[in-house]
Amino acid sequence: MKFSVHRTAFIQYLNDVQRAISSKAALEILSGIKLDLSEDGLTLTGSNSDISIETIISIADEKAALNIEKTGRVVLPARFFNEIVKKLPEDTMSIEVNDRFQATIKSGSAEFTINGLDPDDYPHLPEIDSREQLTLPGDILKQVINQTVIAASKQETRPILTGIHLAIKGDQLLAVATDSHRLSQRKLNLATASEVDYDIIVPAQSMNELAKMIGELSEDIEIQISENQILFILGNTSFYSRLLEGNYPDTERLIPQSSSTSLEVNAPEFLRAIERASLLSHEGRNNVVKLALQAGSNQATLYSNSPEVGNVEEELTFNKLEGNDLEISFNPDYMKDALRSFGQSEVVLDFTLPLRPFTLVPSESQGEFIQLITPVRTI
Amino acid sequence: MKFSVHRTAFIQYLNDVQRAISSKAALEILSGIKLDLSEDGLTLTGSNSDISIETIISIADEKAALNIEKTGRVVLPARFFNEIVKKLPEDTMSIEVNDRFQATIKSGSAEFTINGLDPDDYPHLPEIDSREQLTLPGDILKQVINQTVIAASKQETRPILTGIHLAIKGDQLLAVATDSHRLSQRKLNLATASEVDYDIIVPAQSMNELAKMIGELSEDIEIQISENQILFILGNTSFYSRLLEGNYPDTERLIPQSSSTSLEVNAPEFLRAIERASLLSHEGRNNVVKLALQAGSNQATLYSNSPEVGNVEEELTFNKLEGNDLEISFNPDYMKDALRSFGQSEVVLDFTLPLRPFTLVPSESQGEFIQLITPVRTI
Repeated sequence: MKFSVHRTAFIQYLNDVQRAISSKAALEILSGIKLDLSEDGLTLTGSNSDISIETIISIADEKAALNIEKTGRVVLPARFFNEIVKKLPEDTMSIEVNDRFQATIKSGSAEFTINGLDPDDYPHLPEIDSREQLTLPGDILKQVINQTVIAASKQETRPILTGIHLAIKGDQLLAVATDSHRLSQRKLNLATASEVDYDIIVPAQSMNELAKMIGELSEDIEIQISENQILFILGNTSFYSRLLEGNYPDTERLIPQSSSTSLEVNAPEFLRAIERASLLSHEGRNNVVKLALQAGSNQATLYSNSPEVGNVEEELTFNKLEGNDLEISFNPDYMKDALRSFGQSEVVLDFTLPLRPFTLVPSESQGEFIQLITPVRTI
Repeated sequence: MKFSVHRTAFIQYLNDVQRAISSKAALEILSGIKLDLSEDGLTLTGSNSDISIETIISIADEKAALNIEKTGRVVLPARFFNEIVKKLPEDTMSIEVNDRFQATIKSGSAEFTINGLDPDDYPHLPEIDSREQLTLPGDILKQVINQTVIAASKQETRPILTGIHLAIKGDQLLAVATDSHRLSQRKLNLATASEVDYDIIVPAQSMNELAKMIGELSEDIEIQISENQILFILGNTSFYSRLLEGNYPDTERLIPQSSSTSLEVNAPEFLRAIERASLLSHEGRNNVVKLALQAGSNQATLYSNSPEVGNVEEELTFNKLEGNDLEISFNPDYMKDALRSFGQSEVVLDFTLPLRPFTLVPSESQGEFIQLITPVRTI
């Protein structure tokens, strides 16, 4: 195997694949990156127990300026190889691999020789034999991920809740996550209806990595789903994730259908008030803030109190307040996560009773996106 | 105690004092910040076992717009108070403290009440009865610190080596630090000669904090020294550090007086080559790189080799190479620290024998600043 490549372009491809490679890989070979050089281009592969990423540097990519002298394959220690490539002195670098999988990396007057591993020992990527191809614009997919992933559980006590539930039926996509204290749900119309119905659970961590990889990319992403894998195709890059096994709880029934008190606020303004109140609640023993709503006197007040630390009180500004008077207590961190997912927009909070879950929806296009938070019982 | 102040200016003062306050303070009261409001202004004090910082917000400071209603004193939980001040909604904030040291902090419609501590329990700052005042421009003092602090020991096995040795004799200041593997020495002429000779050791950690506080400040800093304390006065801020007790080793005799091989390089270029070589040495068992100098063939080559990982070899570019051929091995991390302290300049490396310490000096003004590195024995 022997080739030269333009370093800056190569680094971008490396960074994408690096996302799948853990420095604490269970198998030594999975701490490596696989390079597979054919006559069409160079394929880079990285993998861990959850996700695998494969990207192809085509000979047609002018920025990469890939120059192939001899095809071949090798697995190189990923982190170390990455560091070397980043620090090389010149714009161009070359790699030559001998029969014992030793790679000689040259750039300018610097020459590294590093020990690689046998590519035959590298696991095969999952095969996905889906006839159906769904597509979503990159920016929309990223938005769906970022809006739901916040509510997924970070604890392994109920593994199924560490995933995002995706249900596809016709031209409808429903994405839900919940850690049993809060829930986030996003609905979406697909441009073309799916012939098959899907009901799958993707690890939230995988979706997070995918969202980071999408970055500012808005072009269409192709999605293929098999029994235990999902594949996202972004241009030259394939992103595989395993699926979680099990049945996702029925979340639809958790969402209240009525409202007895309704508050409309500006998301970032309300967020800043919650952040202030949470400074105090974080210092105290119980991480709770209280919201008191009085539509009659047109007052909304936020409180937090910890006898050992002190207390905080703030009159809120809001757009609209309607319905019954109410006092409700909640974890401010759930509220912060929820409010951040609304960006700069106006948000409607709908309450029923002090101990019943309440919801947040954007003032515009209310059907699409809903956040739910379970309140906390206080004395 | 009651006052109002402009928040942005107040935060800058808070940040300075915060440097001295540890979140893991041994005494609860030292995790607090002391506020002492007199008719002239507000004094803020923070302290830990090594350093104390006191700053005065004068009523004359127009940016702070300090408005005093009632004088008084209190100690507030520093980190928590700081976070609150940063998150308050409006430009102006007010603080009122009652007899039970409860502080009410108001800004806009937000109102915090937090529990403070009795200021009488706060330790007194050291008293320094120095008649003599030395001064140094801030930028020069910061340079002296940054150039020497890198060589101070980070280990407590020989506590004296965790300090910077400062010797002042007439108009000469000598600053030295060594961890016994490397040494850094800076000489300086003072604008006015000191009447008293000083020989003191200041904790490197204290000097590091001082350097950060100096920031871009180039105005004169006043220095006062007593038996076990040093005081730096920067405008309205006093920075106290304890001194280390004991005798600093005689370092002058460690610096070689002759050279048999001499190499002149550009510091940042040489640094980048060392960084590349250290990528490999860091992966291997011994963190060592080797420099081979051949004046006859005008070649300087850098190597590192770790059988389990691989090897690296690089032909160096240099300005000048003179003297005997030499192969010498050293810890690349010491070399990186040393080279960074030279900034963009040209540097002369002087060697005697493969197992004797070698030195680095700037090509210009060679007498002022010297770095010394002890080589490593290799097979």
